[in-house]
Amino acid sequence: MNEKQLIELIIQDLPHSDNVILGPGDDCAITQIPSHLKNPQSILKVDSIVEDIHFTSDELPEKVGRKALARPVSDFAAMGCHPSSALISLSLPTPLDTKWVSQFYQGMVELAKELNISIVGGETTGSPKGKMISVSVSGFCEEGGFISRNGAQKGDAIFVTGTLGGSLDERHLLFQPRLKEGEWLRQNFKIHSMMDLSDGLASDLSQILGFSSLGADLLKPAIPIAKAAKTRHREGRSKKFPLEAAMTDGEDYELVFTVAPKDAVPLKDGFKKTFPETPISCIGKVSPKEGIRFQTEQGFELLRQKGFDHFENPDSN
Amino acid sequence: MNEKQLIELIIQDLPHSDNVILGPGDDCAITQIPSHLKNPQSILKVDSIVEDIHFTSDELPEKVGRKALARPVSDFAAMGCHPSSALISLSLPTPLDTKWVSQFYQGMVELAKELNISIVGGETTGSPKGKMISVSVSGFCEEGGFISRNGAQKGDAIFVTGTLGGSLDERHLLFQPRLKEGEWLRQNFKIHSMMDLSDGLASDLSQILGFSSLGADLLKPAIPIAKAAKTRHREGRSKKFPLEAAMTDGEDYELVFTVAPKDAVPLKDGFKKTFPETPISCIGKVSPKEGIRFQTEQGFELLRQKGFDHFENPDSN
Repeated sequence: MNEKQLIELIIQDLPHSDNVILGPGDDCAITQIPSHLKNPQSILKVDSIVEDIHFTSDELPEKVGRKALARPVSDFAAMGCHPSSALISLSLPTPLDTKWVSQFYQGMVELAKELNISIVGGETTGSPKGKMISVSVSGFCEEGGFISRNGAQKGDAIFVTGTLGGSLDERHLLFQPRLKEGEWLRQNFKIHSMMDLSDGLASDLSQILGFSSLGADLLKPAIPIAKAAKTRHREGRSKKFPLEAAMTDGEDYELVFTVAPKDAVPLKDGFKKTFPETPISCIGKVSPKEGIRFQTEQGFELLRQKGFDHFENPDSN
Repeated sequence: MNEKQLIELIIQDLPHSDNVILGPGDDCAITQIPSHLKNPQSILKVDSIVEDIHFTSDELPEKVGRKALARPVSDFAAMGCHPSSALISLSLPTPLDTKWVSQFYQGMVELAKELNISIVGGETTGSPKGKMISVSVSGFCEEGGFISRNGAQKGDAIFVTGTLGGSLDERHLLFQPRLKEGEWLRQNFKIHSMMDLSDGLASDLSQILGFSSLGADLLKPAIPIAKAAKTRHREGRSKKFPLEAAMTDGEDYELVFTVAPKDAVPLKDGFKKTFPETPISCIGKVSPKEGIRFQTEQGFELLRQKGFDHFENPDSN
């Protein structure tokens, strides 16, 4: 099978909505911007995954395809916005493993259909060394209808969705982007700042707070530790203690956000009612003092910030 | 230098216009959609280049950066549209070669500034094996304000810009995307179909004609052969005869388009006047009979179509 035959095979099954004016097969894709949006703005994200960094060569291709799309979609969740369309760029070794490609697309298309995202095009190119997948996602919002990372305020309550740590046990491949949760938060509350957790709570929360030179006082028992973080440590597959794993493992793809303290209780109640399946935890509050600390009986304990840095720990993720 | 320091260094110099609401550093980028566009549509393209496929490891990083952006921009030229913004995704081996990265960005930023394209974000990730760069470009047009590949009509005149073949001698790195030419063509004539030449005229023209099950009758002396295609053959660096190189070498990034025969002369005259530096050639006409043929004194000679197929000839490009 050559490149053209492969592309034809893939294109047959791609999901696309009525908004797609020009899909795969032309120089660019064209999509209609929803006419009901007042003074519309464009939302853009590109995200790449690389073999032996973000997935191993023996991973099921369906899961790799799912992850490749889910990662940039998670960034839309963190803006409180829904993505409309995606472009896929594949760099693959020769000779082309057509079975791998079609299974990869199967996993990706399944998630795209579930989330109502059109796949409007892309390209395939050879690669002398390993697989590389780049997914570019686009969407629209009304003027200012998004939540930035920048905006945390002193005294804000800090929330996270889901449970954290140990995502290397499957969750980094099969996570559910928190799209509905992100949109609901944006529509129902004044969220001051939000982002999705990719490098670990310690690192990502520092980023949010860094915009305003603020810090955080967290409560250890409030950190929602994933079961996998505990079993990985217990079974000797990770040296990290569960709390450390929850703070630094990365690839959680949960949302962290801050709101005014007065909104904390109604938000938590409303969220639990609307998303009974998605854990939500208030883990502490934004402090005027920089740095992330755990509040203990003895006082405060400063957290060493060592979330995942793609260049310093390429093997840890 | 770690990832965060590198990103900060890069972000300082990125060009961005007033339309950028949220640039690098957030989960997604946000840009304003121009309000003067009636019923606006979104134009999207992602394109990747891979070390040892699209550039060699000893290539100057400035040129690689320029090419990484110029390629998807050339696809906008082929729609007759101007791009607004770009997102850059880099996968680079560890330890990070910071000098390479900053020179790469220098070349890219220079072209972005020249073409008034905002670089609104991106990401860097590790790569166990070689460099991979993915550039995602976005723009807007009025409803239907673009030129598709699909639309060639029987009897159309076929034009190409520039000269073709031998682009491996530098031109594949330093070509100028035909943005102004593409926009001018769209604004001044009813262009039936257009695309940019990446895989070689023989292959790309076949794609345009394939939409309508049409063919082409070309004139050999009318094919604009690049000087490099001739010198490469004369100096023994390429076995291809110059005409063959012009038809099949690929990476020309010129425009091929078709128009009604009545428009051919005024278009050529107007183009020459407006773009005295850009060669333009009428190379033949669209035929109802499928296949690409050269008209010779003896009759017609069918062209073997062997443009660049990324999986069949990964080394030829």
